[in-house]
Amino acid sequence: MTAFDAICPYDILSGGIPDSTVRFVAKERGLVRMDSRMLSLHADYAIREIDAADILLLPGGGSTPTQMRDQEVLAWVRRIHEKSKWTVSVCTGSLILAAAGLLKGLEATTHWAAMEMLAMFGAKPARQRVVKQGKIVTAAGVSAGIDMALSLVALECGEEQAKAVQLTIEYDPQPPFDSGSVEKASPALVNKVKASLLEYSRKAAAVK
Amino acid sequence: MTAFDAICPYDILSGGIPDSTVRFVAKERGLVRMDSRMLSLHADYAIREIDAADILLLPGGGSTPTQMRDQEVLAWVRRIHEKSKWTVSVCTGSLILAAAGLLKGLEATTHWAAMEMLAMFGAKPARQRVVKQGKIVTAAGVSAGIDMALSLVALECGEEQAKAVQLTIEYDPQPPFDSGSVEKASPALVNKVKASLLEYSRKAAAVK
Repeated sequence: MTAFDAICPYDILSGGIPDSTVRFVAKERGLVRMDSRMLSLHADYAIREIDAADILLLPGGGSTPTQMRDQEVLAWVRRIHEKSKWTVSVCTGSLILAAAGLLKGLEATTHWAAMEMLAMFGAKPARQRVVKQGKIVTAAGVSAGIDMALSLVALECGEEQAKAVQLTIEYDPQPPFDSGSVEKASPALVNKVKASLLEYSRKAAAVK
Repeated sequence: MTAFDAICPYDILSGGIPDSTVRFVAKERGLVRMDSRMLSLHADYAIREIDAADILLLPGGGSTPTQMRDQEVLAWVRRIHEKSKWTVSVCTGSLILAAAGLLKGLEATTHWAAMEMLAMFGAKPARQRVVKQGKIVTAAGVSAGIDMALSLVALECGEEQAKAVQLTIEYDPQPPFDSGSVEKASPALVNKVKASLLEYSRKAAAVK
């Protein structure tokens, strides 16, 4: 997966929701290699060890297609979602929710380059940074998880607490450029990035 | 350390600089527990195994004070810095550079709540999100590492490449609130967060 998708929300939620416990869960316990193959996070729990969660968060990344067709993973996602307070995703994590059948008829977002896939699973693609539909909250690509997690802290603990977290992580963004969305980047750049993401997906699929 | 400090730059640099290799290095190899105690990253290398790096990046967090007084770590930082192309820090990572004697007489930044400590080590605190002094680049608290890393990709590979990375991570920030800096948050909130950070530091120090 993409570490960025998981780590920003993890730091925001663990710091922002008092006495919360964040558990990193994978299909099997142990080291999980990230997208770049240059970093391993440790999953302290296997899915079979976790029966419930107040918040279920699904990050995205190169392994999304594998998870989208793993019936054991999808069944676990549906089971946790049944009793969760919030079911949330970052980037292509929403495609796992979609594959699990949880987004049918709902508005949802994902990474801009994967937006069309949401419709294939019966969701209504919404070009917003964070989309809330009942207890399901989906965020756009990678860094949108920061904005989503702050909103979630506000929903759980109030605006004052969310503002305190924002100040703690000094989240006063000053991107050196202004090309963070399809609307703002040049069409040539959008095409170039889309092509390189496709190439990346092809390579990732070939490895599995 | 704070995972956020390291992970955003890692994803941006590894994705943005072609054929780059990112190595996670700690005093000893193995699992390193993060600030919240709820996540472990794996350090694939011990400092004694790494002799050189084009870019040395120091994240900050609860373990900064321990690293600031570890002569072996500080000597390693000085050694890698000698031949590095860029020496960079996120959040209180700059205090490790300061303790290593590398910021004397230079402008630098760090987490807003730790700004005074920079002066104690002979640096000139600068209230900017990213501060570049020759080959040393320091970033403000936690999330400032995103802006710093994008700037670094631009310096290394040009603006077009940095813009491509910004689009890839969909970095079009839309914080739900506007309290990400000392100037923007209310004075009451600044005091509250400062007190809780101090309390956190006290507890972290007591554990060690």
